[in-house]
Amino acid sequence: MSNNTLKEVADILEARKSAEPDSSYVAKLYDKGLDAILKKVGEEATEVVMAAKDAENGKSTDSEKNSDKIVYEVADLWFHTLVLLAQQNLHPDDVLKELDRRFGTSGLVEKASRQ
Amino acid sequence: MSNNTLKEVADILEARKSAEPDSSYVAKLYDKGLDAILKKVGEEATEVVMAAKDAENGKSTDSEKNSDKIVYEVADLWFHTLVLLAQQNLHPDDVLKELDRRFGTSGLVEKASRQ
Amino acid sequence: MSNNTLKEVADILEARKSAEPDSSYVAKLYDKGLDAILKKVGEEATEVVMAAKDAENGKSTDSEKNSDKIVYEVADLWFHTLVLLAQQNLHPDDVLKELDRRFGTSGLVEKASRQ
Amino acid sequence: MSNNTLKEVADILEARKSAEPDSSYVAKLYDKGLDAILKKVGEEATEVVMAAKDAENGKSTDSEKNSDKIVYEVADLWFHTLVLLAQQNLHPDDVLKELDRRFGTSGLVEKASRQ
Repeated sequence: MSNNTLKEVADILEARKSAEPDSSYVAKLYDKGLDAILKKVGEEATEVVMAAKDAENGKSTDSEKNSDKIVYEVADLWFHTLVLLAQQNLHPDDVLKELDRRFGTSGLVEKASRQ
Repeated sequence: MSNNTLKEVADILEARKSAEPDSSYVAKLYDKGLDAILKKVGEEATEVVMAAKDAENGKSTDSEKNSDKIVYEVADLWFHTLVLLAQQNLHPDDVLKELDRRFGTSGLVEKASRQ
Repeated sequence: MSNNTLKEVADILEARKSAEPDSSYVAKLYDKGLDAILKKVGEEATEVVMAAKDAENGKSTDSEKNSDKIVYEVADLWFHTLVLLAQQNLHPDDVLKELDRRFGTSGLVEKASRQ
Repeated sequence: MSNNTLKEVADILEARKSAEPDSSYVAKLYDKGLDAILKKVGEEATEVVMAAKDAENGKSTDSEKNSDKIVYEVADLWFHTLVLLAQQNLHPDDVLKELDRRFGTSGLVEKASRQ
């Protein structure tokens, strides 16, 4: 899987900026404004913490279920940070570039290996 | 830019699992264990919130600086969720797949357009 | 003002444990369980942070309004920690005793001065 | 125990405002400023969440230890909100009054019962 997912989700979030507030969850969030988005970021971070503690403590005897919960909550957290970026006219590429800068990754490894 | 960044950072985080605790920031975090990682997730979410409020209120008169701060803090937050995923033997692809599932994105747009 | 407030709120929270889930906000929270309470703790902490940043940045030109917002959000945060304590069969006195232990305060100053 | 604890801790926090930055943990926090205090509020809220999840999952087989951890972390969270209030020239009484207003408590029950 190529992870253009973030870029595609960002495109969708950009498009919804011009949508009617009642037309979707995201349109409603934009309409409520920055504080509503930030509250969600704080809330979803808390849910990531709870999911990880449940996994550690083996809340479900099915370890796959515990992992799925972490993945689900991290997706929620990333999603709401993507909404924040969109609302601030920023793009996930800006964040990925910052990570590239820190880790000396180029984002170009796979591309290079294909040639 | 292709955003294989997340995958590359995940590879680096995987490799550092076998490193000496004193050899890097991440190796130290792994050694401290889950709670230390989760504390960072909570802390970095708080810093994203603060950076966004500073931007809203025009803390710096240079609006680019305000944006840079948000990007920097979101990178910190994503990074620590990547550490969490690695520590739990999970992968950013799992999260991207979950986002694909929700948004009907395929992560394959660019690939398709190349053919 | 004597601050028996925490004790009185704790008494109210204790009494509501036996109430019908639909009868009040707190009864509903108990019924949803621990995770719902913890989500609120995380969310209210985020709101405290936002209120303090708004005050710092002079969001309202009326500085009293900015202060009122902080007080309001700290009250929300303390309240939800009181709900957590009640749900765990703990009491604010336990927390106050821990603070006494750390600060060498006795909670007995006013009492002593009355004699 | 009379819970004048909050008031006494607030007095201590007020006194430390004029202390040298290196003289105590709190003096250092004041010196670092609002963002450092808010980071701690976010971090301590996360630790409350983790302690409560550990208790729920019976991390320690000694249930008293699990409870003690919650009490300890709530004390940490309340303490750092008290530091925030002091830094903003606010007082725990302001928060207790807000709770009184909401719950129709007067903070005067014990006083009345003594007469």
